[in-house]
Amino acid sequence: MIPNKETITQAAERILPYIHRTPLITSKRINKIFNADIYFKCENLQKAGAFKTRGAINAVFSLNEHEFKNGVATHSSGNHAQALARAASIRRIKAYIVMPEDSSKVKIEAVKSYGGIITFCKPTLEARETTLALILEKTKAIEIHPYDNYKIIAGQATAAKEFFEQIPEIKTIIVPVGGGGLLSGTALAAHYFSSDTRVIAVEPEQANDAFKSFYSGSFVPSLNPDTIADGLRTSLGTKTFPIIQKHVHQIVTVSEKSIIEAMRLVWESTKMIIEASSAVPIAALLEKKFNFEGQKIGIVISGGNVDFDNLPW
Amino acid sequence: MIPNKETITQAAERILPYIHRTPLITSKRINKIFNADIYFKCENLQKAGAFKTRGAINAVFSLNEHEFKNGVATHSSGNHAQALARAASIRRIKAYIVMPEDSSKVKIEAVKSYGGIITFCKPTLEARETTLALILEKTKAIEIHPYDNYKIIAGQATAAKEFFEQIPEIKTIIVPVGGGGLLSGTALAAHYFSSDTRVIAVEPEQANDAFKSFYSGSFVPSLNPDTIADGLRTSLGTKTFPIIQKHVHQIVTVSEKSIIEAMRLVWESTKMIIEASSAVPIAALLEKKFNFEGQKIGIVISGGNVDFDNLPW
Repeated sequence: MIPNKETITQAAERILPYIHRTPLITSKRINKIFNADIYFKCENLQKAGAFKTRGAINAVFSLNEHEFKNGVATHSSGNHAQALARAASIRRIKAYIVMPEDSSKVKIEAVKSYGGIITFCKPTLEARETTLALILEKTKAIEIHPYDNYKIIAGQATAAKEFFEQIPEIKTIIVPVGGGGLLSGTALAAHYFSSDTRVIAVEPEQANDAFKSFYSGSFVPSLNPDTIADGLRTSLGTKTFPIIQKHVHQIVTVSEKSIIEAMRLVWESTKMIIEASSAVPIAALLEKKFNFEGQKIGIVISGGNVDFDNLPW
Repeated sequence: MIPNKETITQAAERILPYIHRTPLITSKRINKIFNADIYFKCENLQKAGAFKTRGAINAVFSLNEHEFKNGVATHSSGNHAQALARAASIRRIKAYIVMPEDSSKVKIEAVKSYGGIITFCKPTLEARETTLALILEKTKAIEIHPYDNYKIIAGQATAAKEFFEQIPEIKTIIVPVGGGGLLSGTALAAHYFSSDTRVIAVEPEQANDAFKSFYSGSFVPSLNPDTIADGLRTSLGTKTFPIIQKHVHQIVTVSEKSIIEAMRLVWESTKMIIEASSAVPIAALLEKKFNFEGQKIGIVISGGNVDFDNLPW
């Protein structure tokens, strides 16, 4: 069932013991540059380093004993892998994670540190899906998709719900879009908890499937995405796209150059580490992609998992 | 006059409107690695990115109109330059900053952004001192030394004073030592506000003048310091050394390898940007230079001004 006011509220209560209520921060320098009051919701300081923890905990803790007895499984090269492994370890069940063999060492180590059982595969979507199918068949584990899952979406919605509680005056909320889990959750949270807030999504130009899908009205897959914002390379899902169509106000795209400039600006101004995918909304401000001057803007900083051996500058 | 309970308290009140009362953070991962409760006092989130703001504000705001009418001056390639330029701009006086010509672009830009008037010189201590002497003669500005100044020391002492207010249970406080401004201030704050707290200083092996001075009992200058912890290359001062001799319990040294490992560990675990000089205390934990297991430890994270084009890994 598409998350609603009740199920998002239930998700918030369910996950509370296992997540951080992340802080908001502001930067005078950034506010001066953009002539706006910008609040950052720091999901980079979230458990396991990203908002993905919210959805993973909600999904794993929504399962009953019969469902979770054989563990959970997913394919992911990124933050969902860590988040699911952590959620499973808290519930003392197994997490089978299919990871492409070119995943960064940092992310592999993080999954291992939470006790995730990793199976490596070739770095193609097809290899990931066939490897996962084999594992699901062999283990009878339950698949927890990174975004195309209503429990995941309800979990991700709790970040924006908290944001509106912390600063109710936000009139625009900006989030990055990859598979659309955070975006659809944010849009639902705005709809139910702050209905006069405008929801804007930002996507790399070089992975602009959500932009194309949104404005054409029909699903366009992500083909050969080539962006440093590695969390945003995925296509929208069959569950996230309709929610986005209905509740998101605008999607804009940004260049790689702006993403890198935005990432560095946030590092320098806030002394906080944010990943490239999280810099994408700030890149949209640099490119002045919509009107924001003089307004109160909320930006979800989606994660802080960075490979320091491969910085983009 | 050497700062005492009253003058440190006055400094704390004087600077309060112009600084951040910086937060404490903890990291479960770091606590697990070291088997201790470690609290980080985040002076990297301080105004102008470092604790130096405290001393600079205290020094500038302690001057009377007659003293400050011609402005303030210093030589510094680092955080004191920014901090003094900012303090002067708040008081609407001039700040003349002598900087070595090889200073990082980031630091030069930061000084300029606060309106500092920069004079470049050759990158030697002699050139810095002679250039500053010329400027003092020409402008009649008042020199604000980066650390060998009791107002600066009293200002830096307020970081530890706040720390003890925020978490009174700290039984060991660890700080890096360069010129000794932060260390002497911390040691005085511990003496007056938390007298059962052990004060430990950590210094790079490759800039071990404080270590040698402390254990030989007589001043040893820093000769050809070669460390990535660029804030810690300076020698102790005539005002800081006697305070350190009297009130510091232990000084240990650490390798460059450990400093880099510690810096990266903090970046990864806390998602916070700390500069190499700030990683030095954590390097001492990695090298197990003293007994800390099972204890409550306070570490002052001195600053977060990093040149992202020159990371040490």
